[in-house]
Amino acid sequence: MLDQAIEKYQQRVNRVLEAKLNELDDNAPQLKAAMIHGALLGGKRIRPFMVYSIGEMLGADSRILDNAAAAIECVHAYSLIHDDLPAMDDDALRRGQPTVHIAFDEATAILAGDALQTLAFELICQPVEGINPQQQLAMVTALAKASGYSGMCGGQAIDLSSTDKRINIEQLTQLHNKKTGALISCAAELALIAANASDTEQQIIREFAENIGLAFQVQDDILDITASTEELGKPQGSDEEANKSTFPSLLGLDGANECAEKLINDALSALAKLTYNSQLIADFARYIIARRL
Amino acid sequence: MLDQAIEKYQQRVNRVLEAKLNELDDNAPQLKAAMIHGALLGGKRIRPFMVYSIGEMLGADSRILDNAAAAIECVHAYSLIHDDLPAMDDDALRRGQPTVHIAFDEATAILAGDALQTLAFELICQPVEGINPQQQLAMVTALAKASGYSGMCGGQAIDLSSTDKRINIEQLTQLHNKKTGALISCAAELALIAANASDTEQQIIREFAENIGLAFQVQDDILDITASTEELGKPQGSDEEANKSTFPSLLGLDGANECAEKLINDALSALAKLTYNSQLIADFARYIIARRL
Repeated sequence: MLDQAIEKYQQRVNRVLEAKLNELDDNAPQLKAAMIHGALLGGKRIRPFMVYSIGEMLGADSRILDNAAAAIECVHAYSLIHDDLPAMDDDALRRGQPTVHIAFDEATAILAGDALQTLAFELICQPVEGINPQQQLAMVTALAKASGYSGMCGGQAIDLSSTDKRINIEQLTQLHNKKTGALISCAAELALIAANASDTEQQIIREFAENIGLAFQVQDDILDITASTEELGKPQGSDEEANKSTFPSLLGLDGANECAEKLINDALSALAKLTYNSQLIADFARYIIARRL
Repeated sequence: MLDQAIEKYQQRVNRVLEAKLNELDDNAPQLKAAMIHGALLGGKRIRPFMVYSIGEMLGADSRILDNAAAAIECVHAYSLIHDDLPAMDDDALRRGQPTVHIAFDEATAILAGDALQTLAFELICQPVEGINPQQQLAMVTALAKASGYSGMCGGQAIDLSSTDKRINIEQLTQLHNKKTGALISCAAELALIAANASDTEQQIIREFAENIGLAFQVQDDILDITASTEELGKPQGSDEEANKSTFPSLLGLDGANECAEKLINDALSALAKLTYNSQLIADFARYIIARRL
């Protein structure tokens, strides 16, 4: 059931993104192609899944979640394009495909990332029946806070400055809460806003999402050393290669696995306080640490 | 009077930007410093001037224009940081100072641009008395449309793909309408939204701003060959060096001057239809082609 739901929402958000990207004019064809390459390269669509599944659980119609789901994926896609650049992580391969600056060129990759970020904010503002300007404004604010200096961008900067340094588990946790966690939490936040969730629901879902976000990163670190290059779609062991501190490097592989399990258990405990049928989201939480890619 | 007004609004928007940037946490100090360097490097603050002067002329209080003025300057600053990168225009000097990737490093410059773009959208959404969510949402949309694929980013992509090619005056005009004109028009648009301007006012101000925007770029091209490196704060003749088509290269220097004057006259003719005292903005229009930097 989880697999089907993941596939359903993946296809749904891809249709929204495709439609939006294809309707762009053809005045800058290379930039348009690079944006499409970066945004539609594949991927699990974890963040859109959270927007849809949490939003629907709380009673929001998926039609009012479409733009939020597509917007958060645009931000994620832009961050990957920029992170892959030679001046950043210098990755040539992403999801088994050439990264944007390899398939096109560096200038186009920088601009494609920039324009995808802009598109995210434009998408959220599009008028949709069932959602009011206050909610849309709250979504823009949530997405901006999660992706800017205090969130994702700041986390990437801390990550770059921590490379080749020994950092402790608190610093690594803070780094990942910003770099990856903030946007994952934002997916939940967008759903809460769309569904006009109560204070209690907000509190529970936020606790759930924070644990999920960190667990996701711990599992990513684990996969970087335990999965094959083929499974990963990028070179295996690239964290160690880049001399980055990771959860396995600080806690050992067993310690990292235990850490991820504890985070998921905490997420599930939070979720259990909800009066809704939260089976799908609970399954998703378990999938976060069971996944191989 | 124009000089004093330019200085007054320059100081005003700088205070807003400084306050906002200084209140960022210190978790990523290098990124924060790079954002401050990029956003507060100086500059005439043409776009904030337009937001304030047009908005106030139409009856909006400057307090409700502050965030819009700061936001559009954040977008402008981010675009300069990214345009200066080695993969783009590769400029080491901007306003007589080292560009962000020179003062810091490329990765930090990419992230500083990214985070300044995000900050722009966050700023517009901040609650301010006298402006409602519908207006703020319209501002986010206007800023996104002007700065994304269909505006500034698309213009920069067309500019890069036109380098080393002979393009005609229509193509050059389209390029600059997107690359520079869209954001200058957006400054006027933000003022119109804040002031709840009538349809007639919107039509007049848009016509004014479109002509101003293109005249600004024509004058920039003229200054690139007629001003000194010291006046420009960057190497003189850099367009020719980069083998770019410019208005003087296509029309000759006299032709470019005539073109700029015609655009300003068209802008002033539009403005004359307004019933407000538009002296300050008319002076500003004349300044666009009289300026030496």
